[in-house]
Amino acid sequence: MTKTKPPSKKSEFLNLPVEPFVVQPGLSPEEILHRMERISFQGRNLATAHRVWQKMLADNVLIFLGTAGALSAGGLRLIIAQLITTRAVDCLVSTGANLYHDLHETRGRSHFIGSPTVDDHALQTQHIDRVYDTLVDEDEFVENDNWIATFVTTLEKRPYTTRELLYQLGGHLWKETGRDGILTAAFRAQVPIFCPAIADSSIGMGLSQARQRDPNLGHVDVIGDIIESSNLVIRHPRTASVVVGGGTPKNFINQASVQADFYRPGIGGHRYALQIITDVPHFGGASGSSLDEAKSWGKLSNDADRVTVQADATLVLPPLTSALATTARTQLESRQAPRFELGGRAMVVDGKPLIVNRFDTNRVEVF
Amino acid sequence: MTKTKPPSKKSEFLNLPVEPFVVQPGLSPEEILHRMERISFQGRNLATAHRVWQKMLADNVLIFLGTAGALSAGGLRLIIAQLITTRAVDCLVSTGANLYHDLHETRGRSHFIGSPTVDDHALQTQHIDRVYDTLVDEDEFVENDNWIATFVTTLEKRPYTTRELLYQLGGHLWKETGRDGILTAAFRAQVPIFCPAIADSSIGMGLSQARQRDPNLGHVDVIGDIIESSNLVIRHPRTASVVVGGGTPKNFINQASVQADFYRPGIGGHRYALQIITDVPHFGGASGSSLDEAKSWGKLSNDADRVTVQADATLVLPPLTSALATTARTQLESRQAPRFELGGRAMVVDGKPLIVNRFDTNRVEVF
Amino acid sequence: MTKTKPPSKKSEFLNLPVEPFVVQPGLSPEEILHRMERISFQGRNLATAHRVWQKMLADNVLIFLGTAGALSAGGLRLIIAQLITTRAVDCLVSTGANLYHDLHETRGRSHFIGSPTVDDHALQTQHIDRVYDTLVDEDEFVENDNWIATFVTTLEKRPYTTRELLYQLGGHLWKETGRDGILTAAFRAQVPIFCPAIADSSIGMGLSQARQRDPNLGHVDVIGDIIESSNLVIRHPRTASVVVGGGTPKNFINQASVQADFYRPGIGGHRYALQIITDVPHFGGASGSSLDEAKSWGKLSNDADRVTVQADATLVLPPLTSALATTARTQLESRQAPRFELGGRAMVVDGKPLIVNRFDTNRVEVF
Amino acid sequence: MTKTKPPSKKSEFLNLPVEPFVVQPGLSPEEILHRMERISFQGRNLATAHRVWQKMLADNVLIFLGTAGALSAGGLRLIIAQLITTRAVDCLVSTGANLYHDLHETRGRSHFIGSPTVDDHALQTQHIDRVYDTLVDEDEFVENDNWIATFVTTLEKRPYTTRELLYQLGGHLWKETGRDGILTAAFRAQVPIFCPAIADSSIGMGLSQARQRDPNLGHVDVIGDIIESSNLVIRHPRTASVVVGGGTPKNFINQASVQADFYRPGIGGHRYALQIITDVPHFGGASGSSLDEAKSWGKLSNDADRVTVQADATLVLPPLTSALATTARTQLESRQAPRFELGGRAMVVDGKPLIVNRFDTNRVEVF
Repeated sequence: MTKTKPPSKKSEFLNLPVEPFVVQPGLSPEEILHRMERISFQGRNLATAHRVWQKMLADNVLIFLGTAGALSAGGLRLIIAQLITTRAVDCLVSTGANLYHDLHETRGRSHFIGSPTVDDHALQTQHIDRVYDTLVDEDEFVENDNWIATFVTTLEKRPYTTRELLYQLGGHLWKETGRDGILTAAFRAQVPIFCPAIADSSIGMGLSQARQRDPNLGHVDVIGDIIESSNLVIRHPRTASVVVGGGTPKNFINQASVQADFYRPGIGGHRYALQIITDVPHFGGASGSSLDEAKSWGKLSNDADRVTVQADATLVLPPLTSALATTARTQLESRQAPRFELGGRAMVVDGKPLIVNRFDTNRVEVF
Repeated sequence: MTKTKPPSKKSEFLNLPVEPFVVQPGLSPEEILHRMERISFQGRNLATAHRVWQKMLADNVLIFLGTAGALSAGGLRLIIAQLITTRAVDCLVSTGANLYHDLHETRGRSHFIGSPTVDDHALQTQHIDRVYDTLVDEDEFVENDNWIATFVTTLEKRPYTTRELLYQLGGHLWKETGRDGILTAAFRAQVPIFCPAIADSSIGMGLSQARQRDPNLGHVDVIGDIIESSNLVIRHPRTASVVVGGGTPKNFINQASVQADFYRPGIGGHRYALQIITDVPHFGGASGSSLDEAKSWGKLSNDADRVTVQADATLVLPPLTSALATTARTQLESRQAPRFELGGRAMVVDGKPLIVNRFDTNRVEVF
Repeated sequence: MTKTKPPSKKSEFLNLPVEPFVVQPGLSPEEILHRMERISFQGRNLATAHRVWQKMLADNVLIFLGTAGALSAGGLRLIIAQLITTRAVDCLVSTGANLYHDLHETRGRSHFIGSPTVDDHALQTQHIDRVYDTLVDEDEFVENDNWIATFVTTLEKRPYTTRELLYQLGGHLWKETGRDGILTAAFRAQVPIFCPAIADSSIGMGLSQARQRDPNLGHVDVIGDIIESSNLVIRHPRTASVVVGGGTPKNFINQASVQADFYRPGIGGHRYALQIITDVPHFGGASGSSLDEAKSWGKLSNDADRVTVQADATLVLPPLTSALATTARTQLESRQAPRFELGGRAMVVDGKPLIVNRFDTNRVEVF
Repeated sequence: MTKTKPPSKKSEFLNLPVEPFVVQPGLSPEEILHRMERISFQGRNLATAHRVWQKMLADNVLIFLGTAGALSAGGLRLIIAQLITTRAVDCLVSTGANLYHDLHETRGRSHFIGSPTVDDHALQTQHIDRVYDTLVDEDEFVENDNWIATFVTTLEKRPYTTRELLYQLGGHLWKETGRDGILTAAFRAQVPIFCPAIADSSIGMGLSQARQRDPNLGHVDVIGDIIESSNLVIRHPRTASVVVGGGTPKNFINQASVQADFYRPGIGGHRYALQIITDVPHFGGASGSSLDEAKSWGKLSNDADRVTVQADATLVLPPLTSALATTARTQLESRQAPRFELGGRAMVVDGKPLIVNRFDTNRVEVF
């Protein structure tokens, strides 16, 4: 881990005391987080995350949000939707499952409160699927897959990037349901969603079932997603990364930055990085990798504000986003977020389309 | 894990929908926790912990609190002090480190904000000790040890249970400093503190240094603590357990219940159990053991309300206790908490002393 | 978790004693594992994994292997290659990173021993990338990407499933290097490899760079992979799952089984499941999900032999596969593994091609 | 974390390639570990642990072993016994549970193979206790407690350090059973055992039951243990620490070194440190603390060979000690281990008794 020259006097090390948290009735979540800035361990890290997110919003950066883990099934989908709607983030990269479980609820169905010690054979008999302490009706999932396949028949018979496909899916869902959710919020706010591992999800299964109806349907261009996400960074080279849960979104967001730098040297990685993860670095996996390690790859600029919160997102996102709803209000209102138009094959950013199907090597830009 | 007969119809499984958390500015911590009751995973568990703690307070139970991990160094000592002062708990079982770090700050010193990636050799050179991201002046620690040794010279030359010793220590500290902290709050509120592993802490080191001055000093009777804690349960057989961090306190609290049941059969384990831990069950260690497993041992009554929150306490205790400050106010005000007098060798509970040095096998009691 | 009717007598519970492990010089790894069958916790689970893998090999099942985490960079790629060559597994599902790091070494380059506490800024300056305690030359990675792009120009200008693409890549690599590795072993043994999240990897980056040369290059059909993997299960419905590290491969292997069952009801999930993971179930993510939970989804047959080993694969695979090299020799020699021909668009299994681009709904089969 | 000046050229970083592990039938455990020295992550750490332990044995150091977690119940007690008998370690610091479960089996009883998903209420009804996947007869435990209480009545009516008490207990057990185990091996090999948290264990419960028979029985002097363990380090200032599972033993071993240095400055911490743990550093607890952090406290000399293996001990100790049985044979045979006589109140080391009841501040020694 990179570090600055160590102080040479004791007083230089010992200058900011821990301040014990004092409980009071009537504290707001933001006051709680403010007090947590002066405690230790993951509590302090959460408070730092609160500050780092505020700084991102006050700076001129494009904010990626990565979502992995069962966030939608676990009750966090409207938090993500709200981050999109208020433009606390600018571009979502997600696992397919989170989008599928979002679609499930936007279509009017539910996940249900269960227990991790229920009899799984009994569940199987009843066509009920379990995600730890949460249950869902498998027959409704089967029907979702069919609904997706039917939606796909309304598309053109050509490959779609997941970004374009998910925009269309969000629009279709909004027209049919008029309900809030991740996909519909992203459609309405014109916020792009990438899903690099779409083949590893029930949305992918729905696409495959569309192809069963017509072999020219259900084609996705995930390599096109790599190009488009990199061109987005080339267009808007100052970026930030908010990662919840690790997985493919964490790497894809970093890859967009690294690949952009390959074609337009000097981009230099994210300016801010915040991750909420439960994996640890010492087994070598990418989900748990540290933000210091990210610097070696050029995924992160060397002086980036960065913080890792080691915790379950269901514990962390509700208080964190509740606090931001107050503390970041000014920044959100005055923020000049990138403006997208997502209806066509080419993503339009701030009025100018990105190049399609090839990396943008032409731009001469100072940043 | 024990479970009831599974439902035979799908609708019996799927009856309580997950309700996605909706962010709003101005939510109080208790409103946030209330909404988290209907999400999943550890977020839901935290909301359940909030409810279980309220139920404990409304019921006639003796509430043990176990504290392990670097809670005091990490900025949580005044939360624990406040739980003691408001009698949200009735008896503390702690590692020595938490009490020692509390004493350090009550004596007017500090822990300091640091970084986990600092140069540890430089720290060693400067006489600075590190606890992950938190620093402390080693020379001040040396001086604390000496202060403790001097305090011990004021005691009688006989073995003390840790409970009696820590009461005297709290009193001495209060007289000298007049400052809030765990030890001083417990002294003032007459709440007993047990420290079964005192020999594995700097308080133990201070006691050993007292003996260096006089071989008749620094004797503790930790077996006496076993007897007294069991007699406490025999006197007040309806109990609850709040465990933060596992370790020796977790087991000691359970052991008090099991040992009490041995001499007064029918006690039947804690009525409520709430644990906030980071260890996991599948390596077999006691810190991470599940509350279902606890039932096999009779540590927990079979129908106990119980919940495990898998998280760092620094993330969880600030919002949880902030919410309780409001939501449990009525229960705390009307609560008939056990009343202790701790100045003598025998702990006095509700006006009657516990038997000293032997288990109370005489009581005939209905509960 | 499903369980059988509990025994009603103590002796029915307490019938198989733990046998303390006895150390002796000269024990073979298989003798060590044999003794570990009678200890507890993850040690016992590893011994069970050894037995379960042997049972798979003795039964007529198609064995999937899923690989996630930095296995290749971490020194395990020749273990995976050997599992493929000896047909201890029949079909690999992998993250892109594992295949890319394999390609890197097969091309004659190395990963290097490093330290997790090295200065990451210094690494960045030197163009060195870090994976926890392992280092790699970033300039060589850039050259790999270019090599992949050049390879892609030798392919037809049409979408390839990752399975077909990786077979061609393995062949190209074998012709150029003649060296052992995952990709070359799979090519030579005609073992299929799927990479559902290829867009989230440097192989995907190489594909995107090919498209920079020609917009008709670098197209992959990941939805085709869903169909082909399901048709493989429809053809060979008795399956087993060996999962190392969770991630997208874990879910993709289960999805193939579930999707196959949708078109050919009665398949009923894997007959055997073995997973070596570091994630835990209680945060709700798929990587850490339990094999009991898998039963609720129909991913696993209700009576499947199954075991989870909670450990880093670098600790577990070397002794486990070393033992299997001896203990499974007979099964491996007499095993009638599915025979693949992978050169064309349609995968040929045991002499008969799978249907391309649509699920196989025609087969009438008894199993 | 302390680090040396980083190399300035790429080739200085990238000089020792990872060598992929190659599976072969007939490899011995030591050959497996030797090959694992060149892989990554926890696999490499285990190989390093193997080397570090060999180096300890070849050097003139006093080796502490700390044991926490359910090692004895989990089938590792004879490994620990063998480490004691062969003097691969010189002094044991243990939780009470490990010694109690050892006593249980040495007395001819067993722990039993169970499942983590068994019905705990049924177990409770049958008087069966569960430790994750391991079961034990609670009625036999009750009888053990009584046996311990009866043993205690044979002791003098004065406080015993846990070290002296456990030596007597081991002797009593050996005379009665003639069976191998931790306590009996330590008795026979004259290896001291400290149990600083004895009050938090069933041995403590047995002691408390002895006091029920006679108030002058069951007194332990845990502060005396602090003094004796420090005097041991003062006598033999070159030390090594092998920690399995963290907990109170980990800290007590470090405390002995720190306290010794207080009275005899210049000792400078352990020369070697090896820990096998499942806890992580980022929650601030001592069990998971890093060995770099230990240096800031002076628990570890700055240039100590040290390694942390993040894994369950049941996975790691069987292969590691099996390999050492061969690879360390020469060192074990030629080793000049400290020679103890433990029958009296004063521990005799190499023919000279340690001072009792006060720290040894008189020695003038060069080391």
